[in-house]
Amino acid sequence: MTPPPARDKLLFTPGPLTTSLTVKQAMLRDAGSWHFEFNAIVADIRERLLKVAGVSRAAGGYETVLLQGSGTFGVEAVFATCVPPNGKVAVLANGAYGERMVAMLQHAKIGQVVLRTPEDTPNDPNALDRALAADATVTHVAVVHCETTTGIVNPITEIGQVARNHKRSYIVDAMSSFGAMPIDFGGASIDYLISSANKCVEGVPGFSFVIARSEALLACEGYARSLSLDLLAQLKGLEKNGQFRYTPPTHSILAFATALDELEQEGGPGARLARYQRNHQVLVEGMKKIGFRPYLRQEVQSPIITSFLFPDDPKFTFDQFYRKLSDKGFIIYPGKISNANTFRIGNIGRIFEADMRSLLAAIAECVSELGLRI
Amino acid sequence: MTPPPARDKLLFTPGPLTTSLTVKQAMLRDAGSWHFEFNAIVADIRERLLKVAGVSRAAGGYETVLLQGSGTFGVEAVFATCVPPNGKVAVLANGAYGERMVAMLQHAKIGQVVLRTPEDTPNDPNALDRALAADATVTHVAVVHCETTTGIVNPITEIGQVARNHKRSYIVDAMSSFGAMPIDFGGASIDYLISSANKCVEGVPGFSFVIARSEALLACEGYARSLSLDLLAQLKGLEKNGQFRYTPPTHSILAFATALDELEQEGGPGARLARYQRNHQVLVEGMKKIGFRPYLRQEVQSPIITSFLFPDDPKFTFDQFYRKLSDKGFIIYPGKISNANTFRIGNIGRIFEADMRSLLAAIAECVSELGLRI
Repeated sequence: MTPPPARDKLLFTPGPLTTSLTVKQAMLRDAGSWHFEFNAIVADIRERLLKVAGVSRAAGGYETVLLQGSGTFGVEAVFATCVPPNGKVAVLANGAYGERMVAMLQHAKIGQVVLRTPEDTPNDPNALDRALAADATVTHVAVVHCETTTGIVNPITEIGQVARNHKRSYIVDAMSSFGAMPIDFGGASIDYLISSANKCVEGVPGFSFVIARSEALLACEGYARSLSLDLLAQLKGLEKNGQFRYTPPTHSILAFATALDELEQEGGPGARLARYQRNHQVLVEGMKKIGFRPYLRQEVQSPIITSFLFPDDPKFTFDQFYRKLSDKGFIIYPGKISNANTFRIGNIGRIFEADMRSLLAAIAECVSELGLRI
Repeated sequence: MTPPPARDKLLFTPGPLTTSLTVKQAMLRDAGSWHFEFNAIVADIRERLLKVAGVSRAAGGYETVLLQGSGTFGVEAVFATCVPPNGKVAVLANGAYGERMVAMLQHAKIGQVVLRTPEDTPNDPNALDRALAADATVTHVAVVHCETTTGIVNPITEIGQVARNHKRSYIVDAMSSFGAMPIDFGGASIDYLISSANKCVEGVPGFSFVIARSEALLACEGYARSLSLDLLAQLKGLEKNGQFRYTPPTHSILAFATALDELEQEGGPGARLARYQRNHQVLVEGMKKIGFRPYLRQEVQSPIITSFLFPDDPKFTFDQFYRKLSDKGFIIYPGKISNANTFRIGNIGRIFEADMRSLLAAIAECVSELGLRI
């Protein structure tokens, strides 16, 4: 076993994130998953997530369903539950998470058409418009809001308007954006939005959640290809007696309730976004000063995570750079882009401008210690 | 929101359980799921689970795969990954967890034959022998070791021997037994055994684990019906770089590492079983003294959880009884048996003989306060 470090290293990743101590301390309890006190916490979380989303049961008829597992489980649950037997999904892809949707559909033998743009280019609503006009068998459109492969933001409102014009159901993977970046549920006509506990709400991992238009989800009776991932049965279970059908991650859920408190205390998604934007701004300015270049143009860049190109110096290796930064107490993230050598630095979690500046100082030290010319 | 209670209520359930404070305190950290220090902890857990199981890579060629989600996700992952397209599973069922396996297979459109025994009767190896002799298309046999619906123990070694004689693959749901009750992997020829973090190892919920014969699992290439539940891809991911394919419940995993330490400190599964047996014995003796009768005959009863029949007094309602006990700080579990009115009391988790005696005193008080004649 590795001995625990003197203090926890700060995580500059797309999640799991650095969280507040109070969020973690909420896990110092054991809750009965069948118990009415725990059920009340689950019901409250479901209600508060609607509020964070800016929707309600009354306006738009939205519901929250929590699902055990990572965010990927939530996205797959939407496909496994909501696409009819002869359905077909148009996936807009410009990174690994769009491609992951395609892999899910292939596993489930669900028809699909993939509309790809390069990794540095947002998804194209016009291409979708043409594809839907040409193929009446497409039943669903699926897109990733913030593609953390690069950190790019996709135009989910425009894409949703195209889906609505063609009367197709609309699925948004907002894993890394929900809770901070604005999402116009009505304007985008979102039927299913998926996010997870350990992203912008700053909880710990253990479950994902789906904010679904009830009418859409309730119409999916009988489609489910998986028992565990049956989102409609999960909703019915939660509505029937307030319980999860199968053992929930009770501790992650207690932590999430506290994380929602702290999101509110910070001033809600708008204030949180402002903090992340400031983190991002300080990071990019500082990195440029050291000599690193961001991969994306600023116009399409999210404040969630930033990809930086490897420096030209052939002495640079990511492994060495990563380990050196880790020794100094900072954890960054490897790149995932197919056609460029990059690494990533996340701006989200319980990290502030001062933490970004500490990270920048450590990066400058690494560059100097490694004798990199950049 | 419900205000937190003065102290945590003790959980007498099949899990999530009362865990030690040190197990929960292990979650007061944020680990990077991609980081080498975290990967080392995951590798160590996988290794130590083999040791708890009494198997190894060398002897029998077993591997551990951890999977996000509850135990149910782990069982479904085995079916979704390991049953070939034209496979068929013989399910031995005598309770809700056997029936849940049937539901999983139905969702995945996998063929099945169900061999039922009454809920108070162990699964029948002879019936399986006849069924397998009569149906060569059955590829897999699946059984629940300790069926927590009642608390009954099924004869997994005898059933495994029948499966081996007929050369069928063998799947054991040992959710609530692994880590305490003895399991003879070799003698039973187990190919896949599923358990979860929040049972006899006394961790917190968030993931399940499968102890699989590598040769069997590696032969399942291309069968996976789900991306998230693809156990073989999960194994390959863990082997490739020590990482989960998708975000793991980092905090639950840190807690589990401590839970494994504490299982070892207690003296391993044998010592833990002895504690649970003592808990069970004290409970049953005390309950009989108060006037309650266990549902099962002692010969088929596990030390994990005990079902008690409702008393004959028509004044008794479970809800009232449950709430009164909850007010006193004790959480028991409702019954799940189809043909009898029962409630359940678990003996597992960080609870000791003294806790069983406190519970018994509280139950006696409830009976008296409710004026029940039993």
